[in-house]
Amino acid sequence: MSKIRVSLRKAIIASGLKNGMTVSFHHHLRNGDFVINMVMSEIEDLGISDIRIAASSFFPIHGSLVRHIKTGTITAIDCNYMSGPLAEAVTNGMLQKPVMFRTHGGRPRAIMDGSLKIDVAFIASPSSDDMGNLNGASGPSSCGSLGYAMPDALMAGKVIAITDNLVAYPNGPVSIDETNVDHVVVVDSIGDPSGIVSGTTQVTRDPVGHVIARHAADVIEASGLLKDGISFQTGAGGASLATAHYLREKMVSGGIKGSFGMGGITAFFVDMLEDGLFEKLIDVQCFDLDAVRSIRENPNHIEVSASQYANPSAKSCSVESLDVVVLGATEIDTDFNVNVLTDSSGNIMGGSGGHSDTAQGAKLTIIVANLLRARLPIVVDRVTTKVTPGETVDVLVTERGIAVNPARVDLMKSLKEKGLPVVDIVELKEMAEKMAGKPRKVSFTDRVIGFVEYRNGEIIDKVYQPAKE
Amino acid sequence: MSKIRVSLRKAIIASGLKNGMTVSFHHHLRNGDFVINMVMSEIEDLGISDIRIAASSFFPIHGSLVRHIKTGTITAIDCNYMSGPLAEAVTNGMLQKPVMFRTHGGRPRAIMDGSLKIDVAFIASPSSDDMGNLNGASGPSSCGSLGYAMPDALMAGKVIAITDNLVAYPNGPVSIDETNVDHVVVVDSIGDPSGIVSGTTQVTRDPVGHVIARHAADVIEASGLLKDGISFQTGAGGASLATAHYLREKMVSGGIKGSFGMGGITAFFVDMLEDGLFEKLIDVQCFDLDAVRSIRENPNHIEVSASQYANPSAKSCSVESLDVVVLGATEIDTDFNVNVLTDSSGNIMGGSGGHSDTAQGAKLTIIVANLLRARLPIVVDRVTTKVTPGETVDVLVTERGIAVNPARVDLMKSLKEKGLPVVDIVELKEMAEKMAGKPRKVSFTDRVIGFVEYRNGEIIDKVYQPAKE
Repeated sequence: MSKIRVSLRKAIIASGLKNGMTVSFHHHLRNGDFVINMVMSEIEDLGISDIRIAASSFFPIHGSLVRHIKTGTITAIDCNYMSGPLAEAVTNGMLQKPVMFRTHGGRPRAIMDGSLKIDVAFIASPSSDDMGNLNGASGPSSCGSLGYAMPDALMAGKVIAITDNLVAYPNGPVSIDETNVDHVVVVDSIGDPSGIVSGTTQVTRDPVGHVIARHAADVIEASGLLKDGISFQTGAGGASLATAHYLREKMVSGGIKGSFGMGGITAFFVDMLEDGLFEKLIDVQCFDLDAVRSIRENPNHIEVSASQYANPSAKSCSVESLDVVVLGATEIDTDFNVNVLTDSSGNIMGGSGGHSDTAQGAKLTIIVANLLRARLPIVVDRVTTKVTPGETVDVLVTERGIAVNPARVDLMKSLKEKGLPVVDIVELKEMAEKMAGKPRKVSFTDRVIGFVEYRNGEIIDKVYQPAKE
Repeated sequence: MSKIRVSLRKAIIASGLKNGMTVSFHHHLRNGDFVINMVMSEIEDLGISDIRIAASSFFPIHGSLVRHIKTGTITAIDCNYMSGPLAEAVTNGMLQKPVMFRTHGGRPRAIMDGSLKIDVAFIASPSSDDMGNLNGASGPSSCGSLGYAMPDALMAGKVIAITDNLVAYPNGPVSIDETNVDHVVVVDSIGDPSGIVSGTTQVTRDPVGHVIARHAADVIEASGLLKDGISFQTGAGGASLATAHYLREKMVSGGIKGSFGMGGITAFFVDMLEDGLFEKLIDVQCFDLDAVRSIRENPNHIEVSASQYANPSAKSCSVESLDVVVLGATEIDTDFNVNVLTDSSGNIMGGSGGHSDTAQGAKLTIIVANLLRARLPIVVDRVTTKVTPGETVDVLVTERGIAVNPARVDLMKSLKEKGLPVVDIVELKEMAEKMAGKPRKVSFTDRVIGFVEYRNGEIIDKVYQPAKE
């Protein structure tokens, strides 16, 4: 009766995986994940080829996949984000088919509506019982939320749970339940804890970052959204988290109590929950150990699926109830389109993740960025890759001024009334070019190496392979 | 953006409900439920007719549905259990089409595979936010688990949450999430707390019941299953709960620690969890306020969907991991087939609920029953209605002896070795007939008023309308 298979190999064989099929993975173990590599290595050893690998994200640790691309085991990739050697290999044109880049909400949409059909889902499981009741909150490789794996579990033809922490039946709490799991494999270790938690959750020490963050917090206040019940999401790094710091100060001094923080949850948000500044946290992914502890212990820290987080085809999703999101950019153009997928040389180095989802869902979307990035202007005439459409972006905050999307007449008026340094985005571009020079035009080949699929399924841009220098 | 509709009527209109469609309900509010009556009354007022009503169960409080049958608003019923005036009306042939009687596991199977297609699901919700994140654990009408409503929420065309306890977004914990809810309606009250909890959770005072329960506990011990890790389910009434009492005594005196209790959870099982006699509770339905409190507060008290509880088409379900179940019967025949749907006069008065599911899933299925029921023999040549097939029943325990299914040679041997009073089931029948006389044969018309659908979808019996006396 048990679903335990004696080896990963036996489980793959039992799943019926064949040439040309699609396998899927989640990225909750982030740069500490051992599962993608061990599974793909086993698939290659079994002589199975022409596999489409659909993971929510890839990190530098997944560099070994480059080898499987070379051998033809992997011929197609779907993801919401990729960085490291795999991104370099794709940039260099090594993959047979263009990568399908989705968003964290677009991926569950595609899975649920069948446009991304998963044959076998492999779920890295920090705890599992012998029937496949899973959670991510306990065990040596605990990662907290399993939100990104939930649509895969629901819709995949076969589901294989891979765990290093087999517990007695019934496991609880249950993030993914036994009704959706076919096989359970026990391995020595599914991940490296030091890579699972990213550690990027320190508020920046860069004084320029603090200038930007203070301005961003002022923009939120000026928008009228800083009141009881405010909900908020921010990235984990740099000026984004610093903005949360200044927003928090404003909430405390104003006696304002928020409704929920969402994300990508960090210790910073856990503190805000525990200090009563938020009623709840909505967590699709834990970024650090404090978040993992909190989701395990605090009933007001709510684990949600990727669908509930951001699926635009769901009957509703949480990003639609969000007031404010603060996001980064590698480029933003004068129409407020944002690129977080390629750098200014056209190299793949990221992806939307929840960027486009929250930008569209939130009442107020703020991009925070230094005017120069790697000595190049952040504001450009036309983004190299359009990831988040300009019509979903309200404000760009830089250390040299705040640009408001002209469509937000009301907001522009409020910011000016509050005496904030509002400038036209074209002025910001010119300031940057004055400092760094007009950026050299990057040349591309005509080979498409990626499609940018917006959260609703529309292809809004293509990624071309950069020409060799 | 909010899903709040100003009235139930507006929500029904918004759902697009039309003549001939199927609506569904859960029964967690049991005999205190106001929602089925208020919805069906509104549907009738809207002039919509020929409705199939698919509820997990009906109770005496739903007697007002008889009126809607008379007017043609309701022409078909699907359920796992019905009692009270509605059952009488169906027995009297009032409904146009035969009732489809399912099991608690067969219902989610039918919903998930599309054989029971729900157009509009109405979900009584002890708490909801404005986007339809629901739980049953809080609010004035709290009922604990919402397990039976989960498949409806997942699969219905439209989902309407009806609550008397609107809370701030995001509601948590989330039993049913916003991705599956279309409309939210706020009403004064969804139920009567005194009817929501059944109050049948007292251990019987009937000395005969205690004789039976002691024997049943002895059977469990003799079976070899009474050891660390034992899992156990029992009904809430009479000799079933008394069996739990004696099993508990054996566990305490033997220093035995169980893995999980399942059900239909009562205060008795909550005590066992809190006293460390179970590691976990698996809860598809709370029977009393202690269970509601426990599921709200204790992370080891796990809420599960009806699918996870007992769906035979799921990749696995919890009843398959169950060691022992103790169940009742209105009749059992000499082939060990059990009836819990009709009484000996052919009147509908119940249904399988989880009877057939747990009987098939558990390693050891014990029926406990007084030899006479309403002065009639409990053991008969042929059950009036076959609900739980004899091949899934292991033992019948009565106050006059223990009958073992002849297929369980091993078990029969063990019980005899332990000196338990094992008798042939035919002997029990003869004993009963000697006491009460051979029961008068009931005569039936040839009109089918119900189908008994086994958990796998097979029709295993028909319910005929009894002839008038």
